[in-house]
Amino acid sequence: MMESRKSSESKTMMTEIVLPNDTNVYGNLMGGRLMYWMDIAAAISAQKHCNAPVVTASVDNISFESPIKLGNTVHIEAHVTRSFHTSMEVHLKVWGEDHIQQYKYKSNEAYYTFVALDSNGRPKPVPQLIPETEEEKKLFDAALRRRQVRLILGGKMKPDDAAELRALFVKD
Amino acid sequence: MMESRKSSESKTMMTEIVLPNDTNVYGNLMGGRLMYWMDIAAAISAQKHCNAPVVTASVDNISFESPIKLGNTVHIEAHVTRSFHTSMEVHLKVWGEDHIQQYKYKSNEAYYTFVALDSNGRPKPVPQLIPETEEEKKLFDAALRRRQVRLILGGKMKPDDAAELRALFVKD
Amino acid sequence: MMESRKSSESKTMMTEIVLPNDTNVYGNLMGGRLMYWMDIAAAISAQKHCNAPVVTASVDNISFESPIKLGNTVHIEAHVTRSFHTSMEVHLKVWGEDHIQQYKYKSNEAYYTFVALDSNGRPKPVPQLIPETEEEKKLFDAALRRRQVRLILGGKMKPDDAAELRALFVKD
Amino acid sequence: MMESRKSSESKTMMTEIVLPNDTNVYGNLMGGRLMYWMDIAAAISAQKHCNAPVVTASVDNISFESPIKLGNTVHIEAHVTRSFHTSMEVHLKVWGEDHIQQYKYKSNEAYYTFVALDSNGRPKPVPQLIPETEEEKKLFDAALRRRQVRLILGGKMKPDDAAELRALFVKD
Amino acid sequence: MMESRKSSESKTMMTEIVLPNDTNVYGNLMGGRLMYWMDIAAAISAQKHCNAPVVTASVDNISFESPIKLGNTVHIEAHVTRSFHTSMEVHLKVWGEDHIQQYKYKSNEAYYTFVALDSNGRPKPVPQLIPETEEEKKLFDAALRRRQVRLILGGKMKPDDAAELRALFVKD
Amino acid sequence: MMESRKSSESKTMMTEIVLPNDTNVYGNLMGGRLMYWMDIAAAISAQKHCNAPVVTASVDNISFESPIKLGNTVHIEAHVTRSFHTSMEVHLKVWGEDHIQQYKYKSNEAYYTFVALDSNGRPKPVPQLIPETEEEKKLFDAALRRRQVRLILGGKMKPDDAAELRALFVKD
Repeated sequence: MMESRKSSESKTMMTEIVLPNDTNVYGNLMGGRLMYWMDIAAAISAQKHCNAPVVTASVDNISFESPIKLGNTVHIEAHVTRSFHTSMEVHLKVWGEDHIQQYKYKSNEAYYTFVALDSNGRPKPVPQLIPETEEEKKLFDAALRRRQVRLILGGKMKPDDAAELRALFVKD
Repeated sequence: MMESRKSSESKTMMTEIVLPNDTNVYGNLMGGRLMYWMDIAAAISAQKHCNAPVVTASVDNISFESPIKLGNTVHIEAHVTRSFHTSMEVHLKVWGEDHIQQYKYKSNEAYYTFVALDSNGRPKPVPQLIPETEEEKKLFDAALRRRQVRLILGGKMKPDDAAELRALFVKD
Repeated sequence: MMESRKSSESKTMMTEIVLPNDTNVYGNLMGGRLMYWMDIAAAISAQKHCNAPVVTASVDNISFESPIKLGNTVHIEAHVTRSFHTSMEVHLKVWGEDHIQQYKYKSNEAYYTFVALDSNGRPKPVPQLIPETEEEKKLFDAALRRRQVRLILGGKMKPDDAAELRALFVKD
Repeated sequence: MMESRKSSESKTMMTEIVLPNDTNVYGNLMGGRLMYWMDIAAAISAQKHCNAPVVTASVDNISFESPIKLGNTVHIEAHVTRSFHTSMEVHLKVWGEDHIQQYKYKSNEAYYTFVALDSNGRPKPVPQLIPETEEEKKLFDAALRRRQVRLILGGKMKPDDAAELRALFVKD
Repeated sequence: MMESRKSSESKTMMTEIVLPNDTNVYGNLMGGRLMYWMDIAAAISAQKHCNAPVVTASVDNISFESPIKLGNTVHIEAHVTRSFHTSMEVHLKVWGEDHIQQYKYKSNEAYYTFVALDSNGRPKPVPQLIPETEEEKKLFDAALRRRQVRLILGGKMKPDDAAELRALFVKD
Repeated sequence: MMESRKSSESKTMMTEIVLPNDTNVYGNLMGGRLMYWMDIAAAISAQKHCNAPVVTASVDNISFESPIKLGNTVHIEAHVTRSFHTSMEVHLKVWGEDHIQQYKYKSNEAYYTFVALDSNGRPKPVPQLIPETEEEKKLFDAALRRRQVRLILGGKMKPDDAAELRALFVKD
């Protein structure tokens, strides 16, 4: 039987500088470029959890808050919040940092989902995740609700079957 | 007063070949690279609608279905579905095509939201969008519901205030 | 016997934004970068026609008219004009668009020639092309003349053998 | 008055390795990527001649002979063949080299034309070019004929006015 | 007076996946690509220490041990070891990780030196560094010796003046 | 027995323009980007000497003098200075050139070491190098001393065993 893993074991830290190469015409990091980096950080985190090749299965709603500026540093922190049968949800926090002016600012938070693959490219089971801290437990619990949103929006689940999500709207 | 625009006026078509440069270790287009291209296609579409610089404000849930293979063609089709005060929702359809074997396959559908900026980098009002076809009207109506999901998930709206979304769960 | 194809079946539309990454020191799209994109758009078009891998065989005279500016959109439209035994000529039209100022401007027109390859990497026959519109017919007829220019300039044909081209200079 | 320059003064040598990044799906250097490198080598050569910023004005017929393979070295040699009022024609020779098997093979020869710009981005006069060797003189003479082909194909000259080119077809 | 900084305050962690894009023809991370990433990680670390723009002044001897393989993760850890008047030495540790086979392997260790710049692009004083742990103190002390090697090899110091380095060879 | 090679046979010339893509936020060529180009130029030079695949084994101290500016040309000249059993030391000279202002300036000099690989990826013997000019002979002799610095700094040799290096500090 596969051994469980702690959330902290999948923690991944990525750091980049925003170069001209990465900015739009207004001197800010392009959303698409940032999602590209987030995809790599999240994939590393998922691989740490399952020790298998992974592919991006889905990306949840991402809201970009402050744009990250040319020359600033981008910090991306990722860890697995919960695993399902063959998939893992990864939570990402992204913030910018201006080392000259010495302040940090939040860019966004996001959830990417990955599927582990066996040597034939088919989904394979992944270890269970054990949350430890309070924050990890909260992310673990809410992961189920986010999964239902994904399945409903992807047309793979009916709203009526999404018990956890339904509870947000209906006080029975 | 700003003149309204048709949904079809913002239609944008992007075509790419998946080169070694764009693939992960398994020979498939990386999720992050595809989101980068989608961001550019969607930004062009939003600019067509509002004739102003735009920045990515948010990206909705994206589910990746079939992976797009090395050497295959990527087709990205984008158009604005609805505009709000200073923002626009863009719908994207992505599919792969194998010209040798002669078949097409769906990769994903997604919604990106952009904000128009004035010359000081502050949000500025955008023209209203007029949907014409049946599909455009459906996307236009559902845009409100998707916006509520975004606002709730982003912590900017309470579930109780999301009338359109609530209706999916509660038959009063 | 291989079935013929219409010119319109190979039509390919590519759209890009000029990012800092793509410009020279004067803020204009570099000629080399544009030829790179044109090569990809033209290769997709040729593959649509022949359903086989293709390689660039030659590129005709390209005149760059207005330079395309940083932040502007690049539109590349490609379609096969005529096929020869194992090769295809692709016509490309390239224009820039400034969505803020709302005008379009021509960048260039060009002809790329591709050869189809079989599984051993040797040239293989391609379907014949059937031009339909007036413009397609004109491009189809002139393709022979352009081919003679290519062969003469490449040292593979003597001027005296280029009947169609000769007719431009000599009224017998 | 501007001082003339020798052809050899603009000689430029570029060397690259074909990396996975630069190949198509068949493991050969992509035509578009090579044209990108050629554009840079030719621009450096033109700048050496005129000591001013330059932009690509046109590219002549390029025939790709042997494809250059992954891991092989690309050699690009460029020099100005002739200058006209504000423009310069640059001749390029490209060959591949396999250092392991120890052989070289020709890829293509090409002509790029550049225009020199003043500080307002307008064309400015360039020094005259003095050919010295036999090969340089041959390239210098033929430059006029190639210019006529460019102008005719670009619709800026009538075949009847192209005296040098006409002489190839008509023995008066 | 400028306040001193601890070594740990400049700690920077960078994580990357080796993609096809980054490998040589043998499927290993190219030395040049790795030095590029190391330069960025080290620059971020130096900026954290001095809160000013920095430029790479020198790179010490780097020995590459095990090559990092396609698909493996690259970890780069950087921190400032010592500051001199306007410059800072950054120590880098680089290792690869194979998440599938679950082992880590050392790639190299290196020292990059950066100079802080004021708003006119001239070197400006940086805060002193306070080493705390045993390892930090060892790196701090040896930094002087490495600086002498740099100055001697760069022709800016005579071997006789390099007291600390000399002590390695001569037991007076 | 393997035939010796002259130093001049491995001479390699690389030329690049500094594009926005290659600069840091201050408009200068990034150190990491330059080391990437130097790695490629040096690898080509080493391959010319040994006619085998090579990998970067080490990079010596590099001091960056004048930064190379956006739009300027980068010249990299490389040749093998000496071969050891399975490795080769390559000397690189790098300078910038401003074609508009018409001056050249030194950027840096460096030594990269490469190891030749056989078809199983194991080190294989390389031809001996014969220096011819005075400068080549000086580089050849000093190569031994630099090798000792590398081995000492890499912990593979004790200072006492570095006879050539020791002689710099101790006049016996």
